[in-house]
Amino acid sequence: MIYDFNFYNPTKIYFGKTAMQNLATELNGYGKNVLLVYGKNSIKKIGLYDEVLSVLNACGKNVVELAGINANPRYAQVLEGARLVRENAIDLILAVGGGSCIDCAKAISVSAYAEGDPWQKYWIDFEPVNNQIVPVGSVLTMTGTASEMNGGSVITHEEKMIKQGRVFPPEVYPKFSILNPEYTYSVPKHQMVSGIFDIFSHLLEQYFSGEDDNTTDYVIEGVLQSLIVSARAALKDPTNYEARSNIMWCATLGLNRITGLSKTQDWAVHHLEHQLGAYTDCPHGLGLAVLSIPYYKHIYRYGLDKFVRFANKVWGIDGEGKTKDEIALAGIDAFAEFIKELGIPTTLRELGATEEMLPLIAKTTAPGGGYKKDVAEEDFLTVLKACY
Amino acid sequence: MIYDFNFYNPTKIYFGKTAMQNLATELNGYGKNVLLVYGKNSIKKIGLYDEVLSVLNACGKNVVELAGINANPRYAQVLEGARLVRENAIDLILAVGGGSCIDCAKAISVSAYAEGDPWQKYWIDFEPVNNQIVPVGSVLTMTGTASEMNGGSVITHEEKMIKQGRVFPPEVYPKFSILNPEYTYSVPKHQMVSGIFDIFSHLLEQYFSGEDDNTTDYVIEGVLQSLIVSARAALKDPTNYEARSNIMWCATLGLNRITGLSKTQDWAVHHLEHQLGAYTDCPHGLGLAVLSIPYYKHIYRYGLDKFVRFANKVWGIDGEGKTKDEIALAGIDAFAEFIKELGIPTTLRELGATEEMLPLIAKTTAPGGGYKKDVAEEDFLTVLKACY
Repeated sequence: MIYDFNFYNPTKIYFGKTAMQNLATELNGYGKNVLLVYGKNSIKKIGLYDEVLSVLNACGKNVVELAGINANPRYAQVLEGARLVRENAIDLILAVGGGSCIDCAKAISVSAYAEGDPWQKYWIDFEPVNNQIVPVGSVLTMTGTASEMNGGSVITHEEKMIKQGRVFPPEVYPKFSILNPEYTYSVPKHQMVSGIFDIFSHLLEQYFSGEDDNTTDYVIEGVLQSLIVSARAALKDPTNYEARSNIMWCATLGLNRITGLSKTQDWAVHHLEHQLGAYTDCPHGLGLAVLSIPYYKHIYRYGLDKFVRFANKVWGIDGEGKTKDEIALAGIDAFAEFIKELGIPTTLRELGATEEMLPLIAKTTAPGGGYKKDVAEEDFLTVLKACY
Repeated sequence: MIYDFNFYNPTKIYFGKTAMQNLATELNGYGKNVLLVYGKNSIKKIGLYDEVLSVLNACGKNVVELAGINANPRYAQVLEGARLVRENAIDLILAVGGGSCIDCAKAISVSAYAEGDPWQKYWIDFEPVNNQIVPVGSVLTMTGTASEMNGGSVITHEEKMIKQGRVFPPEVYPKFSILNPEYTYSVPKHQMVSGIFDIFSHLLEQYFSGEDDNTTDYVIEGVLQSLIVSARAALKDPTNYEARSNIMWCATLGLNRITGLSKTQDWAVHHLEHQLGAYTDCPHGLGLAVLSIPYYKHIYRYGLDKFVRFANKVWGIDGEGKTKDEIALAGIDAFAEFIKELGIPTTLRELGATEEMLPLIAKTTAPGGGYKKDVAEEDFLTVLKACY
């Protein structure tokens, strides 16, 4: 099945060791007032804060800072950023960090001049963006979300205990993103691994999705194979430039729409993890990894041929003398082994979940399209219990 | 090896049976005067000319026509189009046809307001574009060149007997392209096959290229596999919508830069074919197919490991008990068999070349980077003689 699609991705990517050389040229395309959005201290530790600030200063910018963005960026931080944008007539929001910072920057961009409550408008009612937005640029320090080249913006509303994603249209994508794989070297190992699994999960949410096998599936299989090879190399040596580069580009390709075109897509694992994250604040990729294996075991029979293909093409499982069921399960087992290789916890308990949380997480997760099967609260609870 | 790269591709793609519904919205973004660029009668035969014209009329456009664009678009046609742009204050150039029409539209776009001789300036001296350009849009009817989503513009200067390609920057890319696979149904079989091989060749020119194996190579392998499956299905039934859709998207992916990122690339087969085309006016893809096998046999030893990988991953050659040399050659043989399956001639003679042309073609072909081997006149002559 081939579904009609539109594709438009106007983000400029500067990739590699020399990527930062393009920042000044890009900055010169915008006005004087820049809101610098970043996380905790990591960009200061690696000298990136000083580097970016010196380029900003050389370009004569007035810099306003919004620091301390959380791994799961909070709505309160979005509102704070929106206030700073209005008060300082910000011309460009420059996010320096991982996907959380860029997600937050996009949220600030659409919220600053929104009428009414932006949360309700954009993350609950999913209204089209109909107010002035502020251009966003990014310098990426952690791979995974592909936020550097898409419209995704996942925000956690602390009071409401909801982590909600929204995909904004191309006008909200970063205008430019600077991707130097060396910036990712200092990311702690569990975060690197979390990012790798996030990429994996993005690719699989797009891959396992109905009767729509087409060119995109072959592309996904290619990216998955590259990611597996590079993840193993990066685990051995986190400063392996080629490995970190490939992982970085797999991440961007994994969710810049190229690997989702003409596909129905699933996203149930992500929906479930978002609520797990809202309750535990666990790293996104680790949550996804723990949930994936029981989820796929729960649904693989509904997409048996595709799980057989996954086993063959991605994990090199030889089907000789095996039933489809056996091949599919062997693929899922190989996948589970890979997750172990990455050193990821295998239970929700290890990620801070309590037994009482499980029904609440299941209940608050958006039901949706599982693989040829609708999944809802009961399915989610089964999956959660299977990995508690 | 990972090379630094920039990536920016701002073309909007509308893909599928309903793609044409977006034409009016796009047209409304431009002024009243439209230059309609198309080929011979094929778009009239399939009713597309009437369909496009009715949308143009409904949008209140003044339409000026430049018809009769050749399969190898000629510089004289570019100059004629440039004159029409100036005389009619054209606001948008709309190409309706295959890559030739879109290549020609881009050439007109940069030439209309160029000072001096555009040929010398843009196709010989490769000057950056420093004059006003006119936006280009496209409705695609034949797949292969990916001109619908890149800056490529290959023009033949008839008097000088030179077919010269130029890749223009993103500002010159089509602003939008409408891709309905059904428009490709009526393309004669030899042209469909020519297009399919053109896609194949684009992917291989990017794949076989030095010590730079990275994520991009895995993506290319995926696209190649999809293309092989879909080409076989389309040969059986040219109205197989899924097959024609996949071929169409493989074509766009095959040269919209995604499959070339961080790669050194080769392009020697294309350089050679361009001169073959200048002398014989043969269909581009057929020329590429005839030249590819002797070219790869000429250079495979310089990139042995990659040719082994090609044999394994793309053609499923089992390497058990074989030397690398044998595996690589088995891959090239499988590739040659596929070309025969496509029903493509295997000699230059069949494409209209004469023996006297061979040294002239070899002499006038731009020398360049073969696979870990510089290739020049002598290599080209060897390759030409091997398939004459």
